[in-house]
Amino acid sequence: MVGIIFDMDGVLYRGNKPIEGARELVELLKSSGVPFLFLTNNSTKTPRMYREKLERMGIDVSEERIVTSGLATRLYMEKHFPPGEIFVIGGEGLVEEMERLGWGVVGVDEARSGRWRDVKYVVVGLDPGLTYEKLKYGTLAIRNGAKFIGTNPDTTFPGEEGIYPGAGSILAALKAATDVEPMIIGKPNEPMFEIVKDKIGEEELWMVGDRLDTDIAFAKRFGMKAVMVLTGVHSLDDVEKIGIKPDLVLPSVKELIEYLKVRGVIE
Amino acid sequence: MVGIIFDMDGVLYRGNKPIEGARELVELLKSSGVPFLFLTNNSTKTPRMYREKLERMGIDVSEERIVTSGLATRLYMEKHFPPGEIFVIGGEGLVEEMERLGWGVVGVDEARSGRWRDVKYVVVGLDPGLTYEKLKYGTLAIRNGAKFIGTNPDTTFPGEEGIYPGAGSILAALKAATDVEPMIIGKPNEPMFEIVKDKIGEEELWMVGDRLDTDIAFAKRFGMKAVMVLTGVHSLDDVEKIGIKPDLVLPSVKELIEYLKVRGVIE
Repeated sequence: MVGIIFDMDGVLYRGNKPIEGARELVELLKSSGVPFLFLTNNSTKTPRMYREKLERMGIDVSEERIVTSGLATRLYMEKHFPPGEIFVIGGEGLVEEMERLGWGVVGVDEARSGRWRDVKYVVVGLDPGLTYEKLKYGTLAIRNGAKFIGTNPDTTFPGEEGIYPGAGSILAALKAATDVEPMIIGKPNEPMFEIVKDKIGEEELWMVGDRLDTDIAFAKRFGMKAVMVLTGVHSLDDVEKIGIKPDLVLPSVKELIEYLKVRGVIE
Repeated sequence: MVGIIFDMDGVLYRGNKPIEGARELVELLKSSGVPFLFLTNNSTKTPRMYREKLERMGIDVSEERIVTSGLATRLYMEKHFPPGEIFVIGGEGLVEEMERLGWGVVGVDEARSGRWRDVKYVVVGLDPGLTYEKLKYGTLAIRNGAKFIGTNPDTTFPGEEGIYPGAGSILAALKAATDVEPMIIGKPNEPMFEIVKDKIGEEELWMVGDRLDTDIAFAKRFGMKAVMVLTGVHSLDDVEKIGIKPDLVLPSVKELIEYLKVRGVIE
């Protein structure tokens, strides 16, 4: 059967407004029993926070259908790495995921008292509470041999006043200070694909997204059907400019409903 | 006449302890009327703070003989750029230098109220008070067309607990978030040479330093005589490894006294 992965912002909603067709599509997928997931590189919020956000827009999905890069980081670490204490540079959502690992999270106060020496993992996402001290203890721990993990590579993201620095920008600072390349979990990287594949369990996967460099590149890289919608960041002109080619381009998720019906995926 | 430029840490002192011969050398240079300057890529302190630090170690020099990358940044901006408001990401020393320009410094509170739109220069050094918000307004201003200036390229520096992230690490974060390359003032770059040359006024310059990648590279790049001392970071083994060759290697500034006497520079 076909499993479908949806990027969220620019695909299902923009800011706090649902995109036309998103609600209907989700209900049809559920009633037809089509496996699907919502995926975001954002690590500052947890799946629960996203479920609540979607609910406020009338889109009703369970937490289990939502994969953030913070959740993917937790699942990937659980699957591949031995337990060890974690120093987090990231938002509330990432701290919560790391605490759920039960391996121990070393806070800045503890790091200050010398506990940075015990840190085995430095896990970094976008951190609205970033300070020099956090960069310092991250640097000391990585230089001391801690594994350096990034939730997602995005150097920027659109904010209220313009383009803001993202997780990838904080990773760049730590890379410069340590000369160590982080392992990065989020789209378009392999760890995120592995986690999504584990979760959805289907052989044939479709990825629906608005960004060529993350969503569409991610789909092409791992043999998923790459479906681009034009309700987000990139336009058809960008396909030529950026040179990453989707398998299918649709105006929005509304037209995806028709396409899924024609293909017999939903009724 | 010969003019001599000295790096400070690892050459004249280590931490808070003067290196043997430093005091005597400075007195001899003064009494012989040899033009000399002390130079540092550190922008968190002002020349006045360095004068006080040197004084506590018994080394007596006037503020005018001390060039920090913060001072060099101010002098370079004064010489080459039209006035415009500045957003500073840096320590106390850099803020003080930028305020002395008299062009106006936009603080974080003002930036928050929308004044980042008026910023013409984003000037970045090591900032022990770095926050995400500072990175954010720096990014917004640079993306809005403000000139992006770095005091020095050093990605790390030795701190009490180990190797700490330096100005170059903060620059890397902003570079990632803006896709703009900063103009960097400090060693081994040209703006620092121009400022030092303006200040010392001599044709024949010697540069005395401990680091091959900054001091010695700086000397070689701009035709200064490159004098390496072995009281700091790098050893003779590093000369082979790093592949930057000084013109002269001395155990310490103590032996430099003898050398200067033989060469007839001092009596």
